[in-house]
Amino acid sequence: MKKNIFILGLLSLSFFLLKAQTTDYKVVFDLTSKDSLDQQAVMRWLKEITNERPDAKLEVVMYAKGVNMVTKDRSSVAESVTRLSSNKNISFKVCAIALKNQGIDKSQLFPGIEIVPDGIYEIISKQREGWGYIKASH
Amino acid sequence: MKKNIFILGLLSLSFFLLKAQTTDYKVVFDLTSKDSLDQQAVMRWLKEITNERPDAKLEVVMYAKGVNMVTKDRSSVAESVTRLSSNKNISFKVCAIALKNQGIDKSQLFPGIEIVPDGIYEIISKQREGWGYIKASH
Amino acid sequence: MKKNIFILGLLSLSFFLLKAQTTDYKVVFDLTSKDSLDQQAVMRWLKEITNERPDAKLEVVMYAKGVNMVTKDRSSVAESVTRLSSNKNISFKVCAIALKNQGIDKSQLFPGIEIVPDGIYEIISKQREGWGYIKASH
Repeated sequence: MKKNIFILGLLSLSFFLLKAQTTDYKVVFDLTSKDSLDQQAVMRWLKEITNERPDAKLEVVMYAKGVNMVTKDRSSVAESVTRLSSNKNISFKVCAIALKNQGIDKSQLFPGIEIVPDGIYEIISKQREGWGYIKASH
Repeated sequence: MKKNIFILGLLSLSFFLLKAQTTDYKVVFDLTSKDSLDQQAVMRWLKEITNERPDAKLEVVMYAKGVNMVTKDRSSVAESVTRLSSNKNISFKVCAIALKNQGIDKSQLFPGIEIVPDGIYEIISKQREGWGYIKASH
Repeated sequence: MKKNIFILGLLSLSFFLLKAQTTDYKVVFDLTSKDSLDQQAVMRWLKEITNERPDAKLEVVMYAKGVNMVTKDRSSVAESVTRLSSNKNISFKVCAIALKNQGIDKSQLFPGIEIVPDGIYEIISKQREGWGYIKASH
């Protein structure tokens, strides 16, 4: 009897987790372009998703020329980045290797931007955790 | 004894489902570009896959300028879209937010095109259900 | 008692597999562009990842104009491809349909390049096996 209750508990938990998983909104955006239209598209998507689903977890990973979006004097969306990076459900992460390759110092990034050792590994880790993946382009 | 048969049944079912999963052909294509070469590439892939694997489930999700592909007077592949959208294994879904942003009315879309509330959510839902993901570009 | 030990063993195995899965570095890159900047970006990523993680499994799937990267007289990264293709953890796979569409013969490819019947199916198979997916663009 106790065993049956235990199994029932496990099943309920599974269904609950499955349900939670199928309604969650988690996306990692992959940005490698320096194109201002791509930067603007990403910002627009973050705003639109957050308006409808304030609980959505959103992360933008930037590597190659994508790092321009969060670099002073190279971004066409400075104001949006600064505002959205204060939202605890939105993360901006730049690749340390890309920064090094392009001679960009941490001090040139907007406040609130995180640095990860390897942008590609960050993206595939999120994919593995079940986050959706969107390659940003226009 | 009965319990063992039950467990054996469960295991067989698992293997069957796993096997089915590893031979299925399900892809969601992500189209955000208005480039006619990208439109033509997506059409070519749909035709080539369907020729080899008529059972393949294929879905094209369009948002941002990707909606042009299924909008009258903006598409370079009107005939292909009309023909392929009658295939019950192929879906064309456009993002309602993108339509609104660009002032496109439902009546301007080709027949057979579906509208989804949020194109990005449609894509990540398919990814979560185990569909492959391909960002369309050329 | 024996049953409990068996269950414990299964649980340990599960945790081990889960742990292995969360530290693995496996990526399939999707290349459809003929742009030399995209070709160079893919080569740079392969080198950078392999430097840090020689155990990483990396695969580049080329279809549409992406096949140019491994085709003689069309590649801007011939030397890198030749060198990296000898690394047993790196695979270059081209789509047979793309080769046929573009009239490219196997003899025009660099040595060490594999041909797969369908590039898109190769990519979604890898995604299904838990590999990360990166659309290559710049």
